[in-house]
Amino acid sequence: MKAIILPEFGKKNLQLTTIPDPKKPGAGEVLIQYKAASLNYRDTLVIAGKYNPKFPRPIIPCSDGAGIVLEVGSDVTEFRPGDRVMSTFAPYWIDGNAENWELRTTLGAPLPGTLREYATLPASGLVHRPDYLSDIEAATLRCAAVTAWSSLVRLGGIKSGDWVVVQGTGGVSLFALQIAKMHGAKVILTTSDSAKQSKALKMGADEIINYKETPSWGKRVREITNKRGADHIIEVGGAGTLQESVKAVRSFGNIHLIGVLGGGQGEFEFLPVVMNQVRMQGVVVGPRNSFIEMNRAFAAHETRPVVDKVFSWNDFRESLDYLKSGSHFGKVVVRLD
Amino acid sequence: MKAIILPEFGKKNLQLTTIPDPKKPGAGEVLIQYKAASLNYRDTLVIAGKYNPKFPRPIIPCSDGAGIVLEVGSDVTEFRPGDRVMSTFAPYWIDGNAENWELRTTLGAPLPGTLREYATLPASGLVHRPDYLSDIEAATLRCAAVTAWSSLVRLGGIKSGDWVVVQGTGGVSLFALQIAKMHGAKVILTTSDSAKQSKALKMGADEIINYKETPSWGKRVREITNKRGADHIIEVGGAGTLQESVKAVRSFGNIHLIGVLGGGQGEFEFLPVVMNQVRMQGVVVGPRNSFIEMNRAFAAHETRPVVDKVFSWNDFRESLDYLKSGSHFGKVVVRLD
Amino acid sequence: MKAIILPEFGKKNLQLTTIPDPKKPGAGEVLIQYKAASLNYRDTLVIAGKYNPKFPRPIIPCSDGAGIVLEVGSDVTEFRPGDRVMSTFAPYWIDGNAENWELRTTLGAPLPGTLREYATLPASGLVHRPDYLSDIEAATLRCAAVTAWSSLVRLGGIKSGDWVVVQGTGGVSLFALQIAKMHGAKVILTTSDSAKQSKALKMGADEIINYKETPSWGKRVREITNKRGADHIIEVGGAGTLQESVKAVRSFGNIHLIGVLGGGQGEFEFLPVVMNQVRMQGVVVGPRNSFIEMNRAFAAHETRPVVDKVFSWNDFRESLDYLKSGSHFGKVVVRLD
Amino acid sequence: MKAIILPEFGKKNLQLTTIPDPKKPGAGEVLIQYKAASLNYRDTLVIAGKYNPKFPRPIIPCSDGAGIVLEVGSDVTEFRPGDRVMSTFAPYWIDGNAENWELRTTLGAPLPGTLREYATLPASGLVHRPDYLSDIEAATLRCAAVTAWSSLVRLGGIKSGDWVVVQGTGGVSLFALQIAKMHGAKVILTTSDSAKQSKALKMGADEIINYKETPSWGKRVREITNKRGADHIIEVGGAGTLQESVKAVRSFGNIHLIGVLGGGQGEFEFLPVVMNQVRMQGVVVGPRNSFIEMNRAFAAHETRPVVDKVFSWNDFRESLDYLKSGSHFGKVVVRLD
Repeated sequence: MKAIILPEFGKKNLQLTTIPDPKKPGAGEVLIQYKAASLNYRDTLVIAGKYNPKFPRPIIPCSDGAGIVLEVGSDVTEFRPGDRVMSTFAPYWIDGNAENWELRTTLGAPLPGTLREYATLPASGLVHRPDYLSDIEAATLRCAAVTAWSSLVRLGGIKSGDWVVVQGTGGVSLFALQIAKMHGAKVILTTSDSAKQSKALKMGADEIINYKETPSWGKRVREITNKRGADHIIEVGGAGTLQESVKAVRSFGNIHLIGVLGGGQGEFEFLPVVMNQVRMQGVVVGPRNSFIEMNRAFAAHETRPVVDKVFSWNDFRESLDYLKSGSHFGKVVVRLD
Repeated sequence: MKAIILPEFGKKNLQLTTIPDPKKPGAGEVLIQYKAASLNYRDTLVIAGKYNPKFPRPIIPCSDGAGIVLEVGSDVTEFRPGDRVMSTFAPYWIDGNAENWELRTTLGAPLPGTLREYATLPASGLVHRPDYLSDIEAATLRCAAVTAWSSLVRLGGIKSGDWVVVQGTGGVSLFALQIAKMHGAKVILTTSDSAKQSKALKMGADEIINYKETPSWGKRVREITNKRGADHIIEVGGAGTLQESVKAVRSFGNIHLIGVLGGGQGEFEFLPVVMNQVRMQGVVVGPRNSFIEMNRAFAAHETRPVVDKVFSWNDFRESLDYLKSGSHFGKVVVRLD
Repeated sequence: MKAIILPEFGKKNLQLTTIPDPKKPGAGEVLIQYKAASLNYRDTLVIAGKYNPKFPRPIIPCSDGAGIVLEVGSDVTEFRPGDRVMSTFAPYWIDGNAENWELRTTLGAPLPGTLREYATLPASGLVHRPDYLSDIEAATLRCAAVTAWSSLVRLGGIKSGDWVVVQGTGGVSLFALQIAKMHGAKVILTTSDSAKQSKALKMGADEIINYKETPSWGKRVREITNKRGADHIIEVGGAGTLQESVKAVRSFGNIHLIGVLGGGQGEFEFLPVVMNQVRMQGVVVGPRNSFIEMNRAFAAHETRPVVDKVFSWNDFRESLDYLKSGSHFGKVVVRLD
Repeated sequence: MKAIILPEFGKKNLQLTTIPDPKKPGAGEVLIQYKAASLNYRDTLVIAGKYNPKFPRPIIPCSDGAGIVLEVGSDVTEFRPGDRVMSTFAPYWIDGNAENWELRTTLGAPLPGTLREYATLPASGLVHRPDYLSDIEAATLRCAAVTAWSSLVRLGGIKSGDWVVVQGTGGVSLFALQIAKMHGAKVILTTSDSAKQSKALKMGADEIINYKETPSWGKRVREITNKRGADHIIEVGGAGTLQESVKAVRSFGNIHLIGVLGGGQGEFEFLPVVMNQVRMQGVVVGPRNSFIEMNRAFAAHETRPVVDKVFSWNDFRESLDYLKSGSHFGKVVVRLD
């Protein structure tokens, strides 16, 4: 079958090649054909060898993918050939808190990722695709959308009337915008790009802050929220933005620590976190059941992921460059047919 | 000042009369003028002597009211003269779980209710009225809307994509419909009245079940929800409807036990509750902070309560008859000016 | 291999026989040898055809069992040959809320139960046995102890200083006593048998109520708890005891609906549940992760299950009679070697 | 009445003096006589002007105190003259999440503190003292013990078998040790002082780490916990210790951010917090109801606070020096009679 493999770390080493087909599905297993994969920031770190330099190579990159069931093994009752499905990130993390091995056994290394034609996976590593979505759209959901759902809904208990701050227009941020609006919350989105501003407003953002013009955007969030501060901050910038997030969040509010695009390490002032009883919650995507319940909500509203650009088998390397350029608005997808 | 008092139990004993003005507000207290009150089923029970025959008389009925601040005592920082406010049901129940005395010290007996011109209350017994509401509308919120909010949001953790069943078109049920829709949930409303059906659909109900034509409406809920059952049942019928609710609710779902319009006592089959890990949660209105956070959500959406009919000082007795007739769609209000 | 099978419903049809050995473990599967099984009230219902008359026969009864790993299939990292293990009740219910099929796919019907020499199970259907326990002891934990843990810890959030009422001296009740004491709670146990009373006191029960001498034991619980009522009731009697439980529980307290030993159906008065905001929570055992976290707690304290009597392959039918007699104090076990 | 006042910031400005008696209690108010106060690290910051330089002066320091009710105003049903009581830190924070003004209106500035003979307080600013405690002991509970309770029980949901790390032997840490043991958890305490080590072991600590001998104590915690990491870290050191806490905590574990004894600002590495889904939860003492439920638990076990040293009106300044020296084991109290 076709696959993109990484024999050694470094983007330049990526190659489109042919590898053996996966094994026939055994008890509790399912054979699927991937139709599309989507990119996450994690993929760029894995490929560069920065996420975990100990990952065994060769690696098949990417954690998100959607496709079709070809064959099921014995004892599989949830899926049948022809079902449209999405694979999950951590096939042994079903719900609740995972053990370390469940949390670390993930697609896109150390397990083979989604940039391949076929895969044999445990049934627990798949979920049904809502009918209204295309494969391209479905491929975007697993990591980015579930991270936003886990943060706001499962860990944050979002409710109508809450204020949510989302940083930028990457995958997690736009899904957080959609999920927040779906729950009747109000959204402040930060971006410095005026074209993105108008797109975000069309998607329902209530307020935009241009963080270049207003670097003290935390203060601006307080003004917008009538001095209370925001209930939730979807923090994807890490050390680069966290100090403003602490200013933006209300007492007893939630900072969801999701990404470190602006740096994983930095000087930090802890006292306001203590004095305002702020919760800083690290978030690692989320379990299978979080994915399933999110899909129900998306289907109820026929919510469509924002797909920015679709690449193909042959230009996967360009898709990485594009993601790194930061010019995307929404998700970057690779078509696998 | 004017007030409606109940010297002895029984609706016929209600009288519009003049009683002494309330005391001047002391430290931490606030003097308000009521502009409107609204009726709840509890009021009819209190007046009939069925809610608690030991309540000391005379009683000033009604638990819900809205008005204006006239004067504040020392140490009051939250309110100023001229502020538009709503009183709370249990002025010492602020948040979390109440002690028994906090839960039982409520307006509309044993404390004086809202059918009076003036009241001096602890500041903790008031909340600010959202600007977009009229006094008439604001008077409807305290018991019915907060009960629906406490059930679905605080105790039930409602999320987008959930299915909610509401029974009938009384105050709690219509507020539950509005709150559910506000959170992106889907709503099934039961009613036998076709005029009410079309009104409910206009308010956003996704499905209507005519319980007279479909007495096994629990089964119908399962069909609508693709066999899963509903996530939440707003149970206001008590023994009369609970057995169907058990059939309608999904495994791990919530039955919010709010009212007993159909009887407080009856034969009940417990096994399905056990086997499906159903939660049956009694709900008593909710604390002050539940009211405040609900008002924020309502204000964010400029949600308007459904006011069915407005009565006046002189026809309060008729307002009770009207409520008991069950022909209302939404709240019944008494104008107090 | 040896097994006890039930070709048709009815205790008299149970037979000790020889059936084919289980299949070799495939990917993600584990072959174990059972060393002991324990009985639950559910087993008597299943055998009598009262639990679910549609269960396909022949049935291998019993849901609880402990043993040793003989062989593991590919992709199994959690277990190795020689590991001592316990099987779980619902091998596909890992954590959180289950889908219906996960909740209903359980050992002891519809899946084969634990009264057999060998079983091939998915790795998710096993947990490690704490070292300090014997096989006999370990076999008692799955259903009764996890039900008590799920109720008090996971669903009830038990904390030090809480009052817990446990009814009788069956498996769930004694585990609830142990788990409550482990968390610094105080325990009231109801029993009419004076020999059992003194055993319960030795296990740490703080108060005993003889429900024959004090049939209004709900009132007595209020006296003991200084009028507040108990925080948790472990309700195993169903319709026979629930009305007293409602009297015994405090406002905002929890009635854990676990069993219906005293009848599954009965007259019930709902109003106090509503007015005191009582939570009546059906409990179905609990997921695998509840079992694992409970085992950690048991191991930290080297808590020993109370094993009342141990039967063997040949006298399994007598073990059922013994359980039904109600004279047991703790768990009834069948040795499988 | 006697009081210690701080006309301007700086310890040297503290003076024992006579000020006017408090006002007679109005509606909902209670007049008490303080018998003892206890010191918290916050008091030293307030006095130095470092906590909030805008606090109006003169200040009456200290947030913790116990005494006796002398007189109650109208509408007070919870207290009677002669009742032994403790005042609360934030008299308007009853339960749940506070509004900012409720969180910031606290004894020991901006409200007058507990170093005075008499005080008139709202009834919501008092709780009953468990009978088994002396005034000296009772005075230690409000801030330190409730902070530990809020962290472990209310926010952390501690359960039997959990591992808890407490840093040092100050008030919060020793209360956390007691509360953890009360819930069946296991405790690792860090200290460099061998005399304190043996005292901590006597109080039930399961493991001691000498952080001077083992500066990488996070790694040592992982060894002790069989590689899993601790479930809870009671973080009182701030920037000085937080990086080790991140190494010590398990995936999905809780770091309770309580104090910044080792610095409020510092370099911090966020990535492990994200990747292990760690929750870093700022904690500000806790509401009145947290105090009440903790007192119930303490009373159930007759848990005694560790009082290290008792000072008097005249040597209050020395008590501050003693606290700052860090040589204390438990709480430092000032007797007010």
